[in-house]
Amino acid sequence: MRVTIIGTGLIGGSMAIALKEKGFAKHIIGVDKHAVHAEKALALGLVDAVLPLQEAVAQSDLVVLATPINAAETLLPQVLDMADRQVVMDVGSTKKMICASVASHAKRGRFVATHPMWGTEYSGPEAAVKGAFTDKATVICDKANSDADAVACVEEVYRLLGMHLVYMNADDHDVHVAYVSHISHITSFALANTVLEKEKEEDAIFELASGGFESTVRLAKSNPAMWVPIFMQNKENVLDVLNEHIAQLRKFKACLEKENYDYLQELIENANGIRRILK
Amino acid sequence: MRVTIIGTGLIGGSMAIALKEKGFAKHIIGVDKHAVHAEKALALGLVDAVLPLQEAVAQSDLVVLATPINAAETLLPQVLDMADRQVVMDVGSTKKMICASVASHAKRGRFVATHPMWGTEYSGPEAAVKGAFTDKATVICDKANSDADAVACVEEVYRLLGMHLVYMNADDHDVHVAYVSHISHITSFALANTVLEKEKEEDAIFELASGGFESTVRLAKSNPAMWVPIFMQNKENVLDVLNEHIAQLRKFKACLEKENYDYLQELIENANGIRRILK
Repeated sequence: MRVTIIGTGLIGGSMAIALKEKGFAKHIIGVDKHAVHAEKALALGLVDAVLPLQEAVAQSDLVVLATPINAAETLLPQVLDMADRQVVMDVGSTKKMICASVASHAKRGRFVATHPMWGTEYSGPEAAVKGAFTDKATVICDKANSDADAVACVEEVYRLLGMHLVYMNADDHDVHVAYVSHISHITSFALANTVLEKEKEEDAIFELASGGFESTVRLAKSNPAMWVPIFMQNKENVLDVLNEHIAQLRKFKACLEKENYDYLQELIENANGIRRILK
Repeated sequence: MRVTIIGTGLIGGSMAIALKEKGFAKHIIGVDKHAVHAEKALALGLVDAVLPLQEAVAQSDLVVLATPINAAETLLPQVLDMADRQVVMDVGSTKKMICASVASHAKRGRFVATHPMWGTEYSGPEAAVKGAFTDKATVICDKANSDADAVACVEEVYRLLGMHLVYMNADDHDVHVAYVSHISHITSFALANTVLEKEKEEDAIFELASGGFESTVRLAKSNPAMWVPIFMQNKENVLDVLNEHIAQLRKFKACLEKENYDYLQELIENANGIRRILK
């Protein structure tokens, strides 16, 4: 199969590696508005060729949109205009707006809205890795709006990547990811800013940083070009979770201020319930 | 050297493994108020014998206090009462109160206040691991209040563990760890509670949880028996950082509410500054 990957960064590049390795893609074409990314992807062997969008789509059976989600929302209707037999899929972190952007498009059926739940805090073609995606969940949204052959093709892609499939409507997806992904990034950004602020007066603040700190702060390295559009598009859900999270933090604050250590104990025991989920 | 470890859990047990492996400890005696922990530590080979406190101290050259910090604060004056030639060190996460607890003790010089910056979210003897501590920082506080031979012995222990030594007064230590350790635990506990609250209405909320979520929430598995005393003892510093962290989260909230995405971009770019610290 001939595959075009639009956006040759962390996700697009890692997908290219996997699809080549599994023998699914015989030929991979990269499209990237940043020429330097496209050249790098070619030099790294992530893609076999770099072409302008229209030529790339014309030569492909499958088109993967792997740009930041604001660009994907603009590109998707254009790609569908160019498509006939092609299957078009996206891999963005929100699903409601991109689905809305082609809701009444004549070729809506060729599009499959997806979100593989894998990523790292790094970006660009150099961040692409072998063995990404494996054993993680991937979401296919609003499956009934896609043609059966297009869904079958995308399901095959994700099975080859070793992911397990979850089906959901786009609205529910966006609520869920606000809880299990977007809020983690906000807390991590805010925690980094908290400590960096203190660093201005205390040089040695990071000398003692260990594994626990790194674990909660590493997502703060994430790229704003990816995350600002995610927070924009999922604003309402993210605000709901952020308000709840601030309320939860205020409970810890109140325990300390009032020296109510029995309640503090309860809050921590309740949080330990996460052991059921994270093995 | 004969070593007593009081509190045969994650830290005490991991230290026992390392001190035996490096040939520093010929014989390790475990002391634990939980008989089941002591037996487990013996069965796992972490310690060579289990004895009551007084006998253990009498037979030892080095005594390591590795209990939760509230217990350590009570035990330390008792252990110093029993000590003559022995070196006594603690490994607790706060330093101000434990130093205060023996400030005017006749044998204060035998005590060295330390905090190795390593841990995991697990606890108990089964959580002890080989290779812990290596390449992390360890703090020695108020060094001038300890006898020179006692400091030299403790420095040797930490060098054998592969840690690099940082010297600090107890007050500064407690401020620093509030920023680079204690707040990470509070955000993680609060984030777990945020999502567990939502789970009550949404069964499938964790189906999509991936690496980023796990990273920010894993500390929420941590033991309240360890953490409640830490937050109690370091209340003022933790409250300062928690207030700053809530203020930082409110900036993200305001950006979303006011759709001020330029400022959101700035906040994330600023948070990316953590790349200087976390390689």
